[in-house]
Amino acid sequence: MKLYYATGTCALASHIALEEAGAEYSTVKINFATSEQRSPEYLAINPKGRVPSLVTEKGILTETPAMLAFIAQSFPKARLAPLDDAFCFAEVQAFNSYLCSTVHVAHAHRMRGHRWVDDPAAIEAMKQKVPQTMGDCFALIESKMFQGPWVMGGTYTICDPYLFTIAQWLEGDSVDPARFPKVKAHRDRMSERAAVRKVLAEERG
Amino acid sequence: MKLYYATGTCALASHIALEEAGAEYSTVKINFATSEQRSPEYLAINPKGRVPSLVTEKGILTETPAMLAFIAQSFPKARLAPLDDAFCFAEVQAFNSYLCSTVHVAHAHRMRGHRWVDDPAAIEAMKQKVPQTMGDCFALIESKMFQGPWVMGGTYTICDPYLFTIAQWLEGDSVDPARFPKVKAHRDRMSERAAVRKVLAEERG
Repeated sequence: MKLYYATGTCALASHIALEEAGAEYSTVKINFATSEQRSPEYLAINPKGRVPSLVTEKGILTETPAMLAFIAQSFPKARLAPLDDAFCFAEVQAFNSYLCSTVHVAHAHRMRGHRWVDDPAAIEAMKQKVPQTMGDCFALIESKMFQGPWVMGGTYTICDPYLFTIAQWLEGDSVDPARFPKVKAHRDRMSERAAVRKVLAEERG
Repeated sequence: MKLYYATGTCALASHIALEEAGAEYSTVKINFATSEQRSPEYLAINPKGRVPSLVTEKGILTETPAMLAFIAQSFPKARLAPLDDAFCFAEVQAFNSYLCSTVHVAHAHRMRGHRWVDDPAAIEAMKQKVPQTMGDCFALIESKMFQGPWVMGGTYTICDPYLFTIAQWLEGDSVDPARFPKVKAHRDRMSERAAVRKVLAEERG
């Protein structure tokens, strides 16, 4: 498998999951600074012009929640999701869907406001609210969703690299991570994992 | 199972899926006009204050993509998803994730701009771009994603009620459905299904 990613993006979640799964995979770094995600070559891989994309022997996958579930199902021995219990699997998916459709979207209003509005003043106004919206999202995660020590409780799942990835954005979004002690401890716990260290070293290298 | 929904929302997708699955379920209509989704009673069910929510014997689920996959897995005889093929299942999930995190979000900037900005002028500016963003999303669905006659090709899946649900919003978002003949034909095809007719009659009743 081949993972297309860009540094500092949600692709980190799938990158960590591939590593945790023990998958054989290679990576291709896409350079957002040169808008490589909009190049004809990359649009042929992912017409949405986004990362991540995962090239598999059966075809190309996009969308982080779908890729994470695919990795968990493709490497069942790694036990990255409760594959034998439809309800528990749905809880995992619901958490990841919230990260994708609400938390990531809240964050995107800081740097990608042009997706939803043209007026420069409105783009600036959007940025102003990001600390509040991201803070509200993480307050909900901290108080209602996070079970601990991992997202779903005692077992590490595909929710963990995804939460870790998005929690990395808090400082940049002017939200103090200290407001969310469980999420902060989770970030520290994640940072100690061999797979996470290896992936971060590669993405930053 | 018990489905909490509101008329005109994405809850319609799960409602149709439950009906197609042959599930035994009841429904509770939440009144957005009185902000019932923000009532203490409803927040105890779904602290996000959104619909849909699905009460199951094992607990409460939220987030449309997770609920749709749960319904498909819980009623395998209905064959609403390719459950035996991780890649094909991931393709289904990727489509639904795109609807949830990109298309629904584009739409939400027309009526729910206050989620992301406080300035009234910015909220108005957001509304102006919705026809373009929703049009772009459906152009991509029409040209790159939709296989036909159903979303994933010859087999009806949980992608179909979800696309049908969001395609219902095009006129309200000032996008002419005639621009997307495959999606329009899909809407007509969906409207003829007994499950869809039954569910629409109930939601509108």
